[in-house]
Amino acid sequence: MHAERFYTLSASCPDRVGIISRVAGFIAEHQGWILESSYHSDPGEGSGSRYFMRIEVKADSLPFPLAEFRQRLAPIAEELQMDWTLSDSAVKKRVVVMVSQQEHCLYDLLARWQSKELDIEIPCVISNHETLRGFVEWHGIPFRHVPVPADNREAAHAEIRRLFEEAQGDTMVLARYMQIISPELCAAHPGQIINIHHSFLPSFVGARPYHQAYQRGVKLIGATCHYVTAELDQGPIIEQDVIRIDHSDSVLDMVRYGKDIEKAVLARGLRYHIENRVLTHGNKTVVFR
Amino acid sequence: MHAERFYTLSASCPDRVGIISRVAGFIAEHQGWILESSYHSDPGEGSGSRYFMRIEVKADSLPFPLAEFRQRLAPIAEELQMDWTLSDSAVKKRVVVMVSQQEHCLYDLLARWQSKELDIEIPCVISNHETLRGFVEWHGIPFRHVPVPADNREAAHAEIRRLFEEAQGDTMVLARYMQIISPELCAAHPGQIINIHHSFLPSFVGARPYHQAYQRGVKLIGATCHYVTAELDQGPIIEQDVIRIDHSDSVLDMVRYGKDIEKAVLARGLRYHIENRVLTHGNKTVVFR
Amino acid sequence: MHAERFYTLSASCPDRVGIISRVAGFIAEHQGWILESSYHSDPGEGSGSRYFMRIEVKADSLPFPLAEFRQRLAPIAEELQMDWTLSDSAVKKRVVVMVSQQEHCLYDLLARWQSKELDIEIPCVISNHETLRGFVEWHGIPFRHVPVPADNREAAHAEIRRLFEEAQGDTMVLARYMQIISPELCAAHPGQIINIHHSFLPSFVGARPYHQAYQRGVKLIGATCHYVTAELDQGPIIEQDVIRIDHSDSVLDMVRYGKDIEKAVLARGLRYHIENRVLTHGNKTVVFR
Amino acid sequence: MHAERFYTLSASCPDRVGIISRVAGFIAEHQGWILESSYHSDPGEGSGSRYFMRIEVKADSLPFPLAEFRQRLAPIAEELQMDWTLSDSAVKKRVVVMVSQQEHCLYDLLARWQSKELDIEIPCVISNHETLRGFVEWHGIPFRHVPVPADNREAAHAEIRRLFEEAQGDTMVLARYMQIISPELCAAHPGQIINIHHSFLPSFVGARPYHQAYQRGVKLIGATCHYVTAELDQGPIIEQDVIRIDHSDSVLDMVRYGKDIEKAVLARGLRYHIENRVLTHGNKTVVFR
Repeated sequence: MHAERFYTLSASCPDRVGIISRVAGFIAEHQGWILESSYHSDPGEGSGSRYFMRIEVKADSLPFPLAEFRQRLAPIAEELQMDWTLSDSAVKKRVVVMVSQQEHCLYDLLARWQSKELDIEIPCVISNHETLRGFVEWHGIPFRHVPVPADNREAAHAEIRRLFEEAQGDTMVLARYMQIISPELCAAHPGQIINIHHSFLPSFVGARPYHQAYQRGVKLIGATCHYVTAELDQGPIIEQDVIRIDHSDSVLDMVRYGKDIEKAVLARGLRYHIENRVLTHGNKTVVFR
Repeated sequence: MHAERFYTLSASCPDRVGIISRVAGFIAEHQGWILESSYHSDPGEGSGSRYFMRIEVKADSLPFPLAEFRQRLAPIAEELQMDWTLSDSAVKKRVVVMVSQQEHCLYDLLARWQSKELDIEIPCVISNHETLRGFVEWHGIPFRHVPVPADNREAAHAEIRRLFEEAQGDTMVLARYMQIISPELCAAHPGQIINIHHSFLPSFVGARPYHQAYQRGVKLIGATCHYVTAELDQGPIIEQDVIRIDHSDSVLDMVRYGKDIEKAVLARGLRYHIENRVLTHGNKTVVFR
Repeated sequence: MHAERFYTLSASCPDRVGIISRVAGFIAEHQGWILESSYHSDPGEGSGSRYFMRIEVKADSLPFPLAEFRQRLAPIAEELQMDWTLSDSAVKKRVVVMVSQQEHCLYDLLARWQSKELDIEIPCVISNHETLRGFVEWHGIPFRHVPVPADNREAAHAEIRRLFEEAQGDTMVLARYMQIISPELCAAHPGQIINIHHSFLPSFVGARPYHQAYQRGVKLIGATCHYVTAELDQGPIIEQDVIRIDHSDSVLDMVRYGKDIEKAVLARGLRYHIENRVLTHGNKTVVFR
Repeated sequence: MHAERFYTLSASCPDRVGIISRVAGFIAEHQGWILESSYHSDPGEGSGSRYFMRIEVKADSLPFPLAEFRQRLAPIAEELQMDWTLSDSAVKKRVVVMVSQQEHCLYDLLARWQSKELDIEIPCVISNHETLRGFVEWHGIPFRHVPVPADNREAAHAEIRRLFEEAQGDTMVLARYMQIISPELCAAHPGQIINIHHSFLPSFVGARPYHQAYQRGVKLIGATCHYVTAELDQGPIIEQDVIRIDHSDSVLDMVRYGKDIEKAVLARGLRYHIENRVLTHGNKTVVFR
């Protein structure tokens, strides 16, 4: 992440000759200074190849503000049939954090937020338990307790959605939140809800993945950061990592080692997301690191 | 691996008080010098905990030869209800290598054999193709071509078994051998047949695992070295590892990266096996590295 | 770490025949149940080989308390010329944490302490800055501010020593504490002071290691957890790890990536230490993981 | 690496507005299809920032052959003050391999060459020993024995240079070649000679790095692939990696583990080099993976 203010164009479009030339040409024409740029052509299957790009332009190199940049870029985007977003590094992402009772991911995220390593706003933390209220509130962040009773999940789901939208969240992070997210919420905010699953997907989908890993006798365990979709643990994978274990490790040891992978993978995945480095492509992601 | 000649006891038995004392006491009584020893207690599930051990004793520290060591140890082993093997570092394991057309694992194994890093005999290499004959024979190793015609697999299976037994092989290594091993052979030589599967099991069982991985959009790919059982890719896992990939990697890139992991994981797993470091426990392994 | 109470013998002695037998025999004689045991023979250079061991015995399997265990073991230890410690898992280590202004290691340690993953007492946190007082005190841990003025370091050094000893600390952890520890304190508490250095030692000793790494153009950066001795960054290494970087990473990016390695390596090293898994041998360590 | 024939532009120039636009614009103007492109701006120190790029253009998308592409690009390159090379994927790099007696890197490279994973010509292998002649010649590659007597290194150095130039080598790979390369050869072929050093540089420069690592008690050992310059082990680093060891590993074990890292790191570094992915910048490299 650069220190100067910059605008980030993240886009994809059908592949053809001259895309970079068209986009970079437009930026150069206005004396835009490109700080960083990444491009990828995905061959696709059947439907033709698709082009992905991410370009950071120094804000004060341009002779106009973001709104005009967007306006002037629009016809080019249309011509290229782009899916695109243009964001401003000076506008912090609003990230709502969901937790249950385990604290490792929350401590990790708040340490990064505190030191501005993660340069985000956290409008609130939502939990189905009261356990972590004190810790969150000490940081000056509002804490919302939304119990999820087995006989009335719908109300809880509705309340979570209401809180997220009221907070004007643009990203929701499930930091070891042990409840299902409602299909409605997933559908309303695709590519905005990030989960950390405590296995190296697609192995060990669902509940108690460390127990499953222990039973199978694997020699590495992992964690997966992915976008949440209506299908459990099936969304586009953003980031994964693993750690070595051996026969002497019990399930509890695996849980302990796993925490270190979970928090690291979630932090990396979230960072890629808030820096607009993740573009989805069907059920896969392009991550411009 | 130590330079001096040594005997290796690899054993497991029901857990109880005094196992180490009993075994190490017996060795000490005869002035046996323990070069290396490892112990593990597995809590088990239901059936009580089980104890695993591996002890290297310097051969010339004992006042008797291996046969007498074995004889004297037998009553203790019986008393402790041990499953045990006692092996001699001076007797090289006889490893039959199975290949198809891909050479990366074979080159890797023969380089290690050539330099005596892998201190084994290779009585023969068996293949369903002629491709690698020249390379194998240049090393002075007999090459056996056993085609596996779709309409007469049984004959091929029988011939492979005959060659393995004729060669007095104690280990069979499937070094990217692209055919199924017959259930009869698996049953006749449990814990003796080692395969390298080109995925991080249990993900992507069966054919074309790199294609499966590409479809799912995982961020790491892996390989698994395991004992072969009648069930495809379900045997006890000996060793695994992974390598990072990203969106820019095609299936062919994954195949290429994967080779490096395959050969490394196979070499490590085989080494553990021939040094008697792997003890199976149901469908899992204890690996004393 | 086992859930049941246990005693841990960590010891080293000159190598000879029968050490395991002698020690395990003594334990078995009293019906001691060994939960976990590790042994290592170091060939040494010149002075003959040295034997290292770590044995966990279930407390309630023994017919006597710790004091008597210690008393009865003493003659055997003397006979074997052992350096030894015998510790009780029910007695928590008292770990004094030293910090400056960076919070990542502190957040990480307190999260692990909070969840009892690190089962220690933290009698106080000492800092040369006030920055982290609130966070520490929120956790109910006393915070001691000891400024280190350039013109009177001696007083600060004396005060730190006084606080450590008053707190009856048995371990001091420098969690990115940016001041030198006095040679007197190092000498008074050898093997008790643990530092995290932000490079892969022995590369980049001293100040600004990430700048040094950037200048040299390395492709991985690392961190090292080591015991503090009078010589800067030269003490016995307990644990190390690295992370991949590339040409696109600035020094600031390296600092950011480095934090994740620092906190993980410090946490692992500290855990090994408090579980009595680390035995020093000259300027090296044996770590029984 | 793409299957289709393509041209690769690897270039660097002083940073300014409009570089991508200028270069990509030129390519687009001629209907050039960009398969892959990477860009990096290095902030530099003192002398201003420098821009690096690597662009693959599909050969048959252009209406003219390579020579004309080069000719037409030249004025733009001059305008931008570029250091540049333009290469053709259909023209294989000529890589002269230097070895001594250890075979692991040679086996690894020849396996990759055999399978066309490394798509290079090997005009000859040069060695100061006869040991590996048979293996090399079996592959149909000429083997040149150039002894390096202590009392006449100059003649050997001259002969090596003569053979390299006679073979029209564009890259020389020191695949665990245990002799010094003459300063004259280094000076005559900067950025063309690649070495694998068996330590994680800058730690353990010079002779017997595994012994040095053993003495220091490090917990990871590594290998470094770098360009050879007149200063021993000081050239620009292309690639590095490490592997975990512990107290139980002797120097011989470290040598054994080290081989696996050496061959993997050398193969990756060489691949980056022959695909024109490595651009040097002072004593550092930009590697567009």
